[in-house]
Amino acid sequence: MTTARKIYQIEGAFSLYRGGKLESPKVAYETWGELNEKADNAVLIFTGLSPSAHAASSPEDPSPGWWEDMIGAEHAIDTTKYFVICMNSLGSCFGSTGANSNDPVTSQLYCTNFPVLSLEDVARAGEKLLSHLGIFKLNTLIGPSMGGMTALAFQVMFPDRAESLLLISTCSSAAPMSIALRSLQREIIRSDPNWNNGFYADGKLPVKGMRLARKLGMISYRSSEEFLTRFGRERVSLGHESHDTFSLDFQIESYLEHHANEFIGQFDPNCYLYLSRASDLFDLADHGGSLEKAIERITTKKISIIGVKSDQLFPYWQQVELYELLKNKNESVELISLDCKQGHDSFLASMNDFRPLVAKFLE
Amino acid sequence: MTTARKIYQIEGAFSLYRGGKLESPKVAYETWGELNEKADNAVLIFTGLSPSAHAASSPEDPSPGWWEDMIGAEHAIDTTKYFVICMNSLGSCFGSTGANSNDPVTSQLYCTNFPVLSLEDVARAGEKLLSHLGIFKLNTLIGPSMGGMTALAFQVMFPDRAESLLLISTCSSAAPMSIALRSLQREIIRSDPNWNNGFYADGKLPVKGMRLARKLGMISYRSSEEFLTRFGRERVSLGHESHDTFSLDFQIESYLEHHANEFIGQFDPNCYLYLSRASDLFDLADHGGSLEKAIERITTKKISIIGVKSDQLFPYWQQVELYELLKNKNESVELISLDCKQGHDSFLASMNDFRPLVAKFLE
Repeated sequence: MTTARKIYQIEGAFSLYRGGKLESPKVAYETWGELNEKADNAVLIFTGLSPSAHAASSPEDPSPGWWEDMIGAEHAIDTTKYFVICMNSLGSCFGSTGANSNDPVTSQLYCTNFPVLSLEDVARAGEKLLSHLGIFKLNTLIGPSMGGMTALAFQVMFPDRAESLLLISTCSSAAPMSIALRSLQREIIRSDPNWNNGFYADGKLPVKGMRLARKLGMISYRSSEEFLTRFGRERVSLGHESHDTFSLDFQIESYLEHHANEFIGQFDPNCYLYLSRASDLFDLADHGGSLEKAIERITTKKISIIGVKSDQLFPYWQQVELYELLKNKNESVELISLDCKQGHDSFLASMNDFRPLVAKFLE
Repeated sequence: MTTARKIYQIEGAFSLYRGGKLESPKVAYETWGELNEKADNAVLIFTGLSPSAHAASSPEDPSPGWWEDMIGAEHAIDTTKYFVICMNSLGSCFGSTGANSNDPVTSQLYCTNFPVLSLEDVARAGEKLLSHLGIFKLNTLIGPSMGGMTALAFQVMFPDRAESLLLISTCSSAAPMSIALRSLQREIIRSDPNWNNGFYADGKLPVKGMRLARKLGMISYRSSEEFLTRFGRERVSLGHESHDTFSLDFQIESYLEHHANEFIGQFDPNCYLYLSRASDLFDLADHGGSLEKAIERITTKKISIIGVKSDQLFPYWQQVELYELLKNKNESVELISLDCKQGHDSFLASMNDFRPLVAKFLE
């Protein structure tokens, strides 16, 4: 397997935000373009919950990345101008240290001995990576979804490290409905007997639990409106209604099945649990005691917030809330609303809407 | 246990809408008030997926019913005026024949040998019950949620049997998002090893699956807005953030847990699967080849449709769709929208909004 993945190993003990520490954790990342001499053309992308650092193809790894149409020469994030870095979140399973890694102290897999992960830890690992790469001030910090929460954590913890900030479909803390959806996904995985408190029984992954949790994920990532126009009540086998009461015969059922099958084996269940819980635990207001106080720490002048009206997981009002707070202290904050039908996944699925906005922001 | 439950046993083979038949199935029901001499003061209520026929208390069973505040002397559905009947759906598990009943032909439990259930079957069992009770024409047919779909099936199959029709938070066919949510609930139950293809392993119920499915149910029955104002990000143990990554410590998690615990043991998992699937399969358009043609069969003049804006399971546009089609052929159709925050459950949870509307309709 070709890979463009680079690994940066943090030296020594890395203390975590909610207690505990990791010994010499690794952070996986990929880069595109060249860092200029002044080291002021870097763009850092924190990802959503599930992507790896492979945001785009490169000569080293020509397979398409998760934001393939966004990053590249003369793309919206132009790699002839910018040095683009995408980091696999600390705690994830695509090269960065997570629950599926070996604990160098015990020489055992962490599994659920991994300490409580916070997005503050992901942000701080990002800061260490930047220092390692010789970058003090980012040209732009970009965070979609969970990556946006990580970017906000980064901003309050390291206020002077980014010239501009692009937040996409994110929030200052998860709404209770989002917590409900993620908590239930976690419980579904934990209820699979193979999960076995994180020490997978006979090494067998909790595949059933992961499949079901992924389906719930897809339901929360997309929108009712999209499902309606895309699938309606169409059946899989046209004209032949199944008489097996429990077969999956609606197109929407088949769509969820397909996505669940694709996800299985890609993502380590424990890593998923840790990142999911970190998303629920994050609250920007923890930094200063209130949301207003936390926002005061953000000194970045140029900020754009993009939200999607059909997003049920990071609902649009959460983008408005961020905008209202940020614009109180900063006139150059802008809020852009999109009417895409693909819900929270629009930044991945509705590239024609997002590309021009990202391009304009980076101009 | 005191009970007001009455049982009507249909004589002989009862052929089902999608094939198969039930031998002498039973239908459980309760009644309040007295049928008048002309037998023209009857109100029939078809229920949502999970309730029993015990919609209200009575001297025979003083325990509160699921619509306790709606039905009674001088209540919105006034039992001094009306003879009120609530039927436990055919296929359910509160006295009516369902997958947890004995098949008189084999003397075995049906389990998943129960044939495919359709809401048309529930409607036809209702028609047989009315004939048994000596009622030809109902004063009013009321259907909330799945009960509304059953009422629509009843209307197209028996067009001259109701003077007026009250539809609440219902639809002519499930939207794909609703199918997705219910299909995933069913898959969660079926994935529990104790389900064992419907023949519960060693008689043990798939309790884990039912708990998780119920949580997903609650998520789909309520609304994001309600969760936000009611729970926010409050923790269960105030001021003590749990450091166990996977404990349920947000109030919203505890709320779902509470409701899941309450539901367990109340509802037979197979019956739940059959009724859930029947809700997905129902399509009013099947009666005539199109929705327009189906609606033409409905001759009832007085129709009221109530919908709730925050309902995600039977979204408000589905009530509008029914209204638009019905008013084309009938001027006395009315559509009422409510802004209650409790989503699909509003007709159970927001009685102050619903009571006056139901009372006015029955005046």
